[in-house]
Amino acid sequence: MADLQDAAPASSLAEVGEFGLIDRITARLPRLPGVIVGPGDDTAVVSAPDGRVAVTTDVLVEGRHFRREWSSAADVGHKAAAANLADIAAMGAVPTALVVGFGAPGGLPAQWALDCARGIAEEAAGAGAAVVGGDVVASGIVIIAITALGDLQGRAPVLRSGARPGDVLAIAGRVGWSAAGLALLEAGAEGPAELIAAHRRPEPEYQAGPRAAIAGATSMIDVSDGLVADAAHLADASGVMVDIDTGTDALAVTEAMQRAADLLGADPRSWMMRGGEDHGLLATFPAGVQMPPSFRVIGRVAGGAAGVVQVDGSAWTGAGGFDHYR
Amino acid sequence: MADLQDAAPASSLAEVGEFGLIDRITARLPRLPGVIVGPGDDTAVVSAPDGRVAVTTDVLVEGRHFRREWSSAADVGHKAAAANLADIAAMGAVPTALVVGFGAPGGLPAQWALDCARGIAEEAAGAGAAVVGGDVVASGIVIIAITALGDLQGRAPVLRSGARPGDVLAIAGRVGWSAAGLALLEAGAEGPAELIAAHRRPEPEYQAGPRAAIAGATSMIDVSDGLVADAAHLADASGVMVDIDTGTDALAVTEAMQRAADLLGADPRSWMMRGGEDHGLLATFPAGVQMPPSFRVIGRVAGGAAGVVQVDGSAWTGAGGFDHYR
Repeated sequence: MADLQDAAPASSLAEVGEFGLIDRITARLPRLPGVIVGPGDDTAVVSAPDGRVAVTTDVLVEGRHFRREWSSAADVGHKAAAANLADIAAMGAVPTALVVGFGAPGGLPAQWALDCARGIAEEAAGAGAAVVGGDVVASGIVIIAITALGDLQGRAPVLRSGARPGDVLAIAGRVGWSAAGLALLEAGAEGPAELIAAHRRPEPEYQAGPRAAIAGATSMIDVSDGLVADAAHLADASGVMVDIDTGTDALAVTEAMQRAADLLGADPRSWMMRGGEDHGLLATFPAGVQMPPSFRVIGRVAGGAAGVVQVDGSAWTGAGGFDHYR
Repeated sequence: MADLQDAAPASSLAEVGEFGLIDRITARLPRLPGVIVGPGDDTAVVSAPDGRVAVTTDVLVEGRHFRREWSSAADVGHKAAAANLADIAAMGAVPTALVVGFGAPGGLPAQWALDCARGIAEEAAGAGAAVVGGDVVASGIVIIAITALGDLQGRAPVLRSGARPGDVLAIAGRVGWSAAGLALLEAGAEGPAELIAAHRRPEPEYQAGPRAAIAGATSMIDVSDGLVADAAHLADASGVMVDIDTGTDALAVTEAMQRAADLLGADPRSWMMRGGEDHGLLATFPAGVQMPPSFRVIGRVAGGAAGVVQVDGSAWTGAGGFDHYR
């Protein structure tokens, strides 16, 4: 896909045209097994060997979810795909296919759209999924609406509602890195680089989802709204209380995170408790179960007040996650 | 779904909040068989009994695909769902599920979003499909990004590429009504009402798609870009020439269409040849095959120059369909 760069450098979408853009994108998409009909017809047709299909959709809007001055087009593509692929993984399913709705102004450089498409396709391929179709429309701002499909491989989906008192709470993936990276970008800082990179291009542990299902996870959720907010979604759906223990190794403040916090005069715990978009997989397992290697314990499930999240033994009173209209 | 109207009349999305809006929408979605996990988890899970799933996505953008002053929220919802459901039908598949990405400004009346969601759910239900999930984001303009899934019921998908010389060309559904309705709205006209209604709320013949597949259709396409443009897509994919005969009954100018043309000083044939968005199903059948009742012959498939569309024996030289960037 490295050669997905054949628009003349100065070409705009208006010059390339809707169908020209689609041709350039689809000509270079990798073909994967499981894709029965690829792009170019009224619909794609994808194998669903399980007889059930997991489906999720996420919309990214310029200025809300990304800024073109802060992220490359490929970064934005990777991030948009990751948000969807992580949701598939959080059901314990394996991603199979993406379809992509793309809106942009006619004046957008065609290369931006091609690079974004490349980022989406690369992130999908890394998770084993193919881009099988899409739609391109004119829009005043860049919009990326992705839908991901996944296969459950014969397993029951891992819902948010299965956590039971006595389960351990564990996470696979980063916590608060993306939020710290965003704060650094907002402040005009240029490092720590790994935090900024984590904001631009999250790296969810897709394989940890199906592995958690196989290991017997009782519940699972993709952390996209923030650790406490998504733990609350899980606690609410399961009718349990969740205790997060910030003294666990997995929630230790990393050296980079501490440096960023010192630089900005911020509290690194706030990024870790409230930050989303790292797309870590938060799961519960029965005590004593051998968890997949990516998962690290960060707390436990208790009875008590349903839907409540405690942090270090006290009910969380800080602000929760992100509400798009608040 | 008639009671999907419980936002206080003056509430904005910002007042109701992202999660409040989602709760209000999902609480009233009908549950259909085939939905294994509905809205509210990381993904939905939908039955895919065929072992393959048809998938398509379309994005509608305010000001491009609809105007809030010309269409009600429910109309917009119906239209957005129809564009996707018709693509599923055009593969010969049966729609099973939709997921909906919805972007809107915080100041949008919450009732508009609820009515739009109701329109989507009603159009889906009419085609046998359920709304199983979605995403709600803040956006400067209203964006509706829908992905539809469909089941092929054990049949081969009907591709664009199967037309053969000697086949008849036939259409199920309206031709040019939506374009005429749009022209009337643009001119500030209030009738003919059936044309304006057709623009606001297309009525694709979803069942005609699977029926065409069963009857042996060799190719099929949803007419969304315009009759000539979509016939050209089909001719191009199949490597054949397509002859459209405007003297056929199915392409007769209706009394309402003539009235609209007289009112606006327009050529009704232009609406019929170039207009999309009625989502008629354009298909080819081997000569002598008994077509499903919705289909009416409008021409034939010939050898000759691949990808060429002739209208009444002459290559079409008028402008084609719609390119979003041109």
